[in-house]
Amino acid sequence: MKQYTVAILGATGAVGTQMLQCLDEQDFPVGKLKLLASARSAGKAVEFRGEQVVIEEARPEAFEGCDIVLGAVEDDLAKTLLPEAVKRGAVVVDNSHAFRLDPDVPLVVPEINAEDIKWHKGLIANPNCATIIGLVPTWPLHKLAGVKRMVVSTYQAASGAGVPGMRELEEQLAALGRGEQLPDPRAFAAQLANNLIPQIGGVKEEGFTSEEMKLQNEGRKIMHLPELRVNCTCVRVPVLRSHSESITLEFERDITVEEAREALAAAPGVKLVDDMDAADASDRYPMPLFTSDQDLIWVGRVRRDISNPEVTRGITFWCCGDQIRKGAATNAVQIAKLLTEE
Amino acid sequence: MKQYTVAILGATGAVGTQMLQCLDEQDFPVGKLKLLASARSAGKAVEFRGEQVVIEEARPEAFEGCDIVLGAVEDDLAKTLLPEAVKRGAVVVDNSHAFRLDPDVPLVVPEINAEDIKWHKGLIANPNCATIIGLVPTWPLHKLAGVKRMVVSTYQAASGAGVPGMRELEEQLAALGRGEQLPDPRAFAAQLANNLIPQIGGVKEEGFTSEEMKLQNEGRKIMHLPELRVNCTCVRVPVLRSHSESITLEFERDITVEEAREALAAAPGVKLVDDMDAADASDRYPMPLFTSDQDLIWVGRVRRDISNPEVTRGITFWCCGDQIRKGAATNAVQIAKLLTEE
Repeated sequence: MKQYTVAILGATGAVGTQMLQCLDEQDFPVGKLKLLASARSAGKAVEFRGEQVVIEEARPEAFEGCDIVLGAVEDDLAKTLLPEAVKRGAVVVDNSHAFRLDPDVPLVVPEINAEDIKWHKGLIANPNCATIIGLVPTWPLHKLAGVKRMVVSTYQAASGAGVPGMRELEEQLAALGRGEQLPDPRAFAAQLANNLIPQIGGVKEEGFTSEEMKLQNEGRKIMHLPELRVNCTCVRVPVLRSHSESITLEFERDITVEEAREALAAAPGVKLVDDMDAADASDRYPMPLFTSDQDLIWVGRVRRDISNPEVTRGITFWCCGDQIRKGAATNAVQIAKLLTEE
Repeated sequence: MKQYTVAILGATGAVGTQMLQCLDEQDFPVGKLKLLASARSAGKAVEFRGEQVVIEEARPEAFEGCDIVLGAVEDDLAKTLLPEAVKRGAVVVDNSHAFRLDPDVPLVVPEINAEDIKWHKGLIANPNCATIIGLVPTWPLHKLAGVKRMVVSTYQAASGAGVPGMRELEEQLAALGRGEQLPDPRAFAAQLANNLIPQIGGVKEEGFTSEEMKLQNEGRKIMHLPELRVNCTCVRVPVLRSHSESITLEFERDITVEEAREALAAAPGVKLVDDMDAADASDRYPMPLFTSDQDLIWVGRVRRDISNPEVTRGITFWCCGDQIRKGAATNAVQIAKLLTEE
């Protein structure tokens, strides 16, 4: 079996660190591993499959000889460095926003549009975390009845702002718990503990934020639905690393709650947790505390949209998924794995 | 000016305690005050306007001579005791769910249907907290363009489960902050700190919970809109005492974002906080940390619903309000104040 030289760009961040773990978990055929990060981290060693890998500074030359590069850095750095990897013959799977809407770059959720990786030109983009977590359960319902409209409210975890975001929430919780004054917020615009912040990303169009537009713009591309309309409100909540979403869908064709539940139960990447009578609360519906550090999107509270005037055309549900894993690293490594199977 | 003999039933709970404070803040013409609670609390003294008031056990005879009774106890106790107050000539404003949908009982949000208090027969019901907080800003938009459909996702505070709910969240945060094991949940079905619980109330119809049906059932009665359709998802979040709601409205007639903002800015009980360019995050949009312990519903993130196929018929916004105050005690005391002004 062919072994690949794999690099992770941004290997010390929350997503990069998780990518390393996912490579191992997904039995990725890694021949040689290169961990790339800022000069500050260069020289430190990280263990992978029992061997120490020394972190190198992320420079264009570092991509020499790489087959696959996993990108886990901010947009600016992704734009500067990743084309250098492509130029040197690597195929890049990038988690930043930089290339997602580029018509020459496939944007892929393996459970939805795995076949799109076939037309890549060296770069494949990994969608936004809230997009992946919302679309994985939307897709099987779309296949049943054709989704045309989504109204989404998100409950997004601190991990969306990386390690600094998680650390800030933990520091705030610790200070609250000890009855101490909270340090000034740095990763977020305001205190997150005991609060909600209804803005993620800058203002983009008609008062919607960049994060709120991603579900529509990326969703159209991933599901091949150029007319899809999505009204999204993105809210940061004091939860560590699982995003949750309250989603209302409108369909072209009839759909019943029973059909929706069956399709979700059978869908890859989805775990249906929808039994309000279960003895244990964690078996009744998805909760972010229980969906962290695993790879499935948990879906529950599946109901008819009782506000839809067409009684058989609307479904409402609630879903949770780990932001760092399926929302980022797991999905990227799944794409890379598909590349090795081509 | 006439002075009233006022009783608070459930005077030691979160809402009852707040009612006492609201009576003072709203300059309520209290001649004599009676504080009623369980036998356990009877005998304890509470200060009101500089005088000590001794708590009495809540028994039918305690309502003798009362002009106005404010109810802040659970449904069962409300059903048993409050008719005894009415029988003795008091007018009751009840915060429980017991009488809200009774056709003989007005259900009132003073900013919306103050005139409904005129047809009371001794009992007036105070709506559910999430209903009040969602409807106060919906009403001025309804008057502009006629609301016909609401899609709502709530972010509800621990205070909705009373003092035990708030105490449980505080205990969990303290344990987390000290790195200790969390005590087993009692007030909630699962750990709330660092988590979200997508169930409030028992299952009612088509998989919706009792809390989720309240916004439609109570909203129809309060706004005199028997055809109103509301799809609501209620979620408990780790926030102490302000509820937040992400609301998408569909209208009968055209409405622009500018008209919606103007109407909200002018609406009683509403504070428009909608300036994404403001220097201070607390001036950009409502956040529950900043809306606690005050009486207004803060509204922001007012946008066109870009998913609505009729481009001029949908508005989306975000609002926050104190659950114990406007969501319960403030609204009840406002109703009682209207009674004194008749």
